[in-house]
Amino acid sequence: MLNGGRFDGALGVLAALEVLRVVKENNLSLTMNLEAIDFTDEEGTLVGLLGSAAIAGKIKPEHLQNPRGGRAALEEGMQRAGVSAESILRAARPRESLGGYLELHIEQGQRLERAGVNIGIVTDIVGIGSYRLTFIGRADHAGTTTMQDRLDAAQGASAFTGAIRDLVIERFLNCVANVGKMEFEPGAFNIVPARVTASLEFRAPNAAEFTRLEAALLDCAELQSKRFGLGLEKEFLGKHSPSPMSEGVQKTFVDACDALGLSRMDLVSGAGHDAQSLASLCPVGMIFVPSVDGASHSPREFTKWGDCVNGANLLLQAAIKMSG
Amino acid sequence: MLNGGRFDGALGVLAALEVLRVVKENNLSLTMNLEAIDFTDEEGTLVGLLGSAAIAGKIKPEHLQNPRGGRAALEEGMQRAGVSAESILRAARPRESLGGYLELHIEQGQRLERAGVNIGIVTDIVGIGSYRLTFIGRADHAGTTTMQDRLDAAQGASAFTGAIRDLVIERFLNCVANVGKMEFEPGAFNIVPARVTASLEFRAPNAAEFTRLEAALLDCAELQSKRFGLGLEKEFLGKHSPSPMSEGVQKTFVDACDALGLSRMDLVSGAGHDAQSLASLCPVGMIFVPSVDGASHSPREFTKWGDCVNGANLLLQAAIKMSG
Repeated sequence: MLNGGRFDGALGVLAALEVLRVVKENNLSLTMNLEAIDFTDEEGTLVGLLGSAAIAGKIKPEHLQNPRGGRAALEEGMQRAGVSAESILRAARPRESLGGYLELHIEQGQRLERAGVNIGIVTDIVGIGSYRLTFIGRADHAGTTTMQDRLDAAQGASAFTGAIRDLVIERFLNCVANVGKMEFEPGAFNIVPARVTASLEFRAPNAAEFTRLEAALLDCAELQSKRFGLGLEKEFLGKHSPSPMSEGVQKTFVDACDALGLSRMDLVSGAGHDAQSLASLCPVGMIFVPSVDGASHSPREFTKWGDCVNGANLLLQAAIKMSG
Repeated sequence: MLNGGRFDGALGVLAALEVLRVVKENNLSLTMNLEAIDFTDEEGTLVGLLGSAAIAGKIKPEHLQNPRGGRAALEEGMQRAGVSAESILRAARPRESLGGYLELHIEQGQRLERAGVNIGIVTDIVGIGSYRLTFIGRADHAGTTTMQDRLDAAQGASAFTGAIRDLVIERFLNCVANVGKMEFEPGAFNIVPARVTASLEFRAPNAAEFTRLEAALLDCAELQSKRFGLGLEKEFLGKHSPSPMSEGVQKTFVDACDALGLSRMDLVSGAGHDAQSLASLCPVGMIFVPSVDGASHSPREFTKWGDCVNGANLLLQAAIKMSG
């Protein structure tokens, strides 16, 4: 990623290769094969979770028809990688061939760093939902229309944006919501905004919280639009369901942390990861190591060498335990 | 104006022509000449108040260099009208040649209609100021960054938009403020907004209120940006100063209303008008007639025939009085 970081994704791949090397060098005898996989397009430049979803048999032809990165970019990417739509659709692994899936990643947040803890054991990967919410008022002369007489779409969208911050902080621990963009119509200095469309994304750690958060956000939009006499259009854009990690694998990580003398805490992953593609197919587990300043998707992204080593050691011990 | 109204501007021109016709038909003997003028570009498709500002000697070469409608549109408009930049710059009337200026216009608001009053006597034309205000936070991953850890530019811009509505309603009678547009950067669903630029316009009826309102709005922007840990950039875009109407002319309108049996109320004009171009050169007065539903700049714009007649009669009586 241009201006992205050097640890997001790459650390997990290098640690997995190191695990294989150590197993090989020590001639460890395991009951199942270990594989390191470098999944493509986790971030969604083309489709999103493309590599892992293909392995999990979750890619359908329609996902390749209108990819979010555009058809041309997908075609070019497939050609460069020597794959085709057909080979992607045939990439699914049989369920019985998978004994488990482990992933090491940087936290991309500050919880571990602030707590001074070595390892985050991921309990769930958040579900992600998105809507376009359009607050609908009336275009009026911004000079001759009194404040009280306006049906100002900006007031509804602004009040909503402020209210959902308080709502999430007060009632939804481990959840987030973001208004990443607003579009104004007609968008002139001297005209009261007739329509403001807010791009809403929200994340919750489990299905129950996801449903509760989604309802609360939409209620809030209704409330704030009514408060200013506005109409409201809600366009659902899609969702990724929350993915709980295997309890057995979490226990394996806990035991291995204790054996290695690493401090640990449970964490919810606020970002999507390839692990969620495989969560319904086999026991899946994921660990985080600290990110300095929580920086991610940025050239500032950094994880200290000691933390990289801790994560790789834990990955090794868990892999041996699960396949030993 | 495409999709504009049939009364804004046009009613005043037709009423002025009717005044001339009545004076002529009745062979009235006046001490000064009456002229009806149809000023071009009051709305600012090209420059804004172009015709009246030219007559008032207020157009400078720089106003024609970078007109808000673009050079090409101005060139084309001048060619179509048979004028040139040179002739516009030479159009100023000598101050001593102007005995007074009267203008009839539709209200473009609902105050007269709601009060059930025939005539609005304009005391002041509002001053108009505009700024681009940029709230500056930090782009972050909208999944992994907790609500508390964000420097979310959308929160500052939204809180500002809500707060100035309350501010104006509570503390600034006869003033208005409008956020007509916001621009988000980077503007993605899953990234906390780093920069939100709000287009602010505000209007106040006199110089003291204008200064007080401008300061209160900028203070509010500072306060709301600080509240969310944001930076703030303020770009001043320009202003039209408030224009008080002549007290003598207002008195003439009052007397004429009383003679004609028309009910009247004092009003501030929230819109700009050609009268403000001439306010510093000669005694200027302006009257409003009711707009049905307050609609303006819209095909819904309408003023009842009886109100048009009332306005024209009042214009006639005031013109005769001032030049009789």
